[in-house]
Amino acid sequence: MTTSREIHLKSRPVGTPTAANFETVTVTLPAPGAGEVQVRNTWMTVDPYMRGRMNDVKSYTPPFALGEAMQGGAVGEVIASNDPSLKVGDLVQSFFGWREAFNAPAAAVQKLETHGLPVQAFLGAVGMPGLTAYAGLLRVAALKDGDVVFVSGAAGAVGQMVCQIAKIKGHTVIGSAGGADKAAYLKSLGVDHVIDYKAEPVGPALMRAAPDGIDVYFDNVGGEHLEAALMAARPFGRFALCGMISQYNATDMGEGVRGLIQAVGKQLKLEGFIVSTHADMQGAFVKDMAEWVAAGKIQWRETVENGIENAPAAFLKLFTGENLGKMLVKLA
Amino acid sequence: MTTSREIHLKSRPVGTPTAANFETVTVTLPAPGAGEVQVRNTWMTVDPYMRGRMNDVKSYTPPFALGEAMQGGAVGEVIASNDPSLKVGDLVQSFFGWREAFNAPAAAVQKLETHGLPVQAFLGAVGMPGLTAYAGLLRVAALKDGDVVFVSGAAGAVGQMVCQIAKIKGHTVIGSAGGADKAAYLKSLGVDHVIDYKAEPVGPALMRAAPDGIDVYFDNVGGEHLEAALMAARPFGRFALCGMISQYNATDMGEGVRGLIQAVGKQLKLEGFIVSTHADMQGAFVKDMAEWVAAGKIQWRETVENGIENAPAAFLKLFTGENLGKMLVKLA
Repeated sequence: MTTSREIHLKSRPVGTPTAANFETVTVTLPAPGAGEVQVRNTWMTVDPYMRGRMNDVKSYTPPFALGEAMQGGAVGEVIASNDPSLKVGDLVQSFFGWREAFNAPAAAVQKLETHGLPVQAFLGAVGMPGLTAYAGLLRVAALKDGDVVFVSGAAGAVGQMVCQIAKIKGHTVIGSAGGADKAAYLKSLGVDHVIDYKAEPVGPALMRAAPDGIDVYFDNVGGEHLEAALMAARPFGRFALCGMISQYNATDMGEGVRGLIQAVGKQLKLEGFIVSTHADMQGAFVKDMAEWVAAGKIQWRETVENGIENAPAAFLKLFTGENLGKMLVKLA
Repeated sequence: MTTSREIHLKSRPVGTPTAANFETVTVTLPAPGAGEVQVRNTWMTVDPYMRGRMNDVKSYTPPFALGEAMQGGAVGEVIASNDPSLKVGDLVQSFFGWREAFNAPAAAVQKLETHGLPVQAFLGAVGMPGLTAYAGLLRVAALKDGDVVFVSGAAGAVGQMVCQIAKIKGHTVIGSAGGADKAAYLKSLGVDHVIDYKAEPVGPALMRAAPDGIDVYFDNVGGEHLEAALMAARPFGRFALCGMISQYNATDMGEGVRGLIQAVGKQLKLEGFIVSTHADMQGAFVKDMAEWVAAGKIQWRETVENGIENAPAAFLKLFTGENLGKMLVKLA
């Protein structure tokens, strides 16, 4: 019998979540049934979008159920198999979430070929956050030659990839992040203009960084960053609305965004997107990423918490911006 | 010698314009020079977008110059010609604005074939406001079968056309306007659900009118109407941002719009547009309109002020919503 600790959603947060919304539960797993495998997770991911799933509202994915393990991406190793398609020791990726180990049908996990990359990269740079950056920039914002690109949350899991993909494509990139460490990291990535929004208001800083305006805004933050982008946008600017972390814990309709009238006169296009809608780009993304990684053109950072018991803390740190790059929880 | 009164911009308004921002100036016109015509305007238009041009800011069109006649659309009759292309009595459309008569190169005015329509319709339903509705709905919002359409400012010059084009195309239409007269007019147009936003808050009214949500929002108003549309939008909803009259007189960045985070999870597309960008649709618009008018499928209303001296008052009434349909000034 295998023992596994899981993190359950105990209560739905109102406003900013706290540790009390979560509960650690120990379960014992029987041997996997016919067609099943047993997986020990080595890494799991916490992502800002999970905040939305903690609310009991209709959205693009159903809400997390109370009293059940939080769902989400994880990578691990098969430790018992009752299916010919997977054997003990195989690495697999799954979406069963915040748990140390689980049983599942073999078809419900994906065998992982790491191609020499660290396994946890498949939860970040070469995984969903990487594809989010790729699809948002290249398809949603329809990046084209000469575009000046502004990215908020630029030192986060998605933002760090947006910055680098835009640089690889030859663009002037303005990245905003909070704090000196993140700003230094962005400079090291070759970001042309770095805004530390904790050190100066983003609006005037953006106007200084892009006196002739911006063409593309990749929004991870919302609020003041979005206002600044509206004011700085050039005609026919395109905004890929990926997330608005500044608003996720609002208990009402959130903060108002001023300056939307700019969208009329400047004929801006603001488009929200969810990465799963662009799953068809996975092949092109993997191919490009393999080339960029091999050529040393892409790097990434991770912030790691250890142990499933620290998964809620890791999640909460997303909202105080304590992660540099991808926030991950190492489980084994 | 012909005498003409013109309305000049005397000072730039801060906030809501007043009569004091305008000045009536009488000029005398010499006989038209070689290649010129002299035109007596019979109708001129006042439009909300003109408010933006009264500010001294860079925009898609340059600001109105102080001490000169306000520019804008007008229709009139050639009263003297020194060019073979136009003769006395010809009807012409022009953009020389708020003046009773003017001299201009013949090539700078367009000869008007009315096809039996009232000449002033070319400043409204079959003119720029009509094309705005047509392009915004069919191209910007990319109207497709089954879409539920919400329109604000629905009883205005553009809105009345949006409602009817959407109905002709077989859609469920929800129209918002302020006041019982406008609501009754919208009902007479066959609008499925009419919201009188002066009688009830638009948000709950929209939720009642479209319990399953909306797919297209044609925005003429901004502010609360835009918030309501964000909340009511279905996944992949498309917003054609045509104007935001509630914000035109703001002296700062305007009112904040809450709920923009809905655009992320619901993958909404919000796109601002200016009719001139879609001038290539003029041919298709004229063809469709001719058919619809001939078939009795299109009607429109006008609110008429008389005399150039009342043009500023007509313009100011746009911001208090005193127009039903197209606001026009009859000059002769």
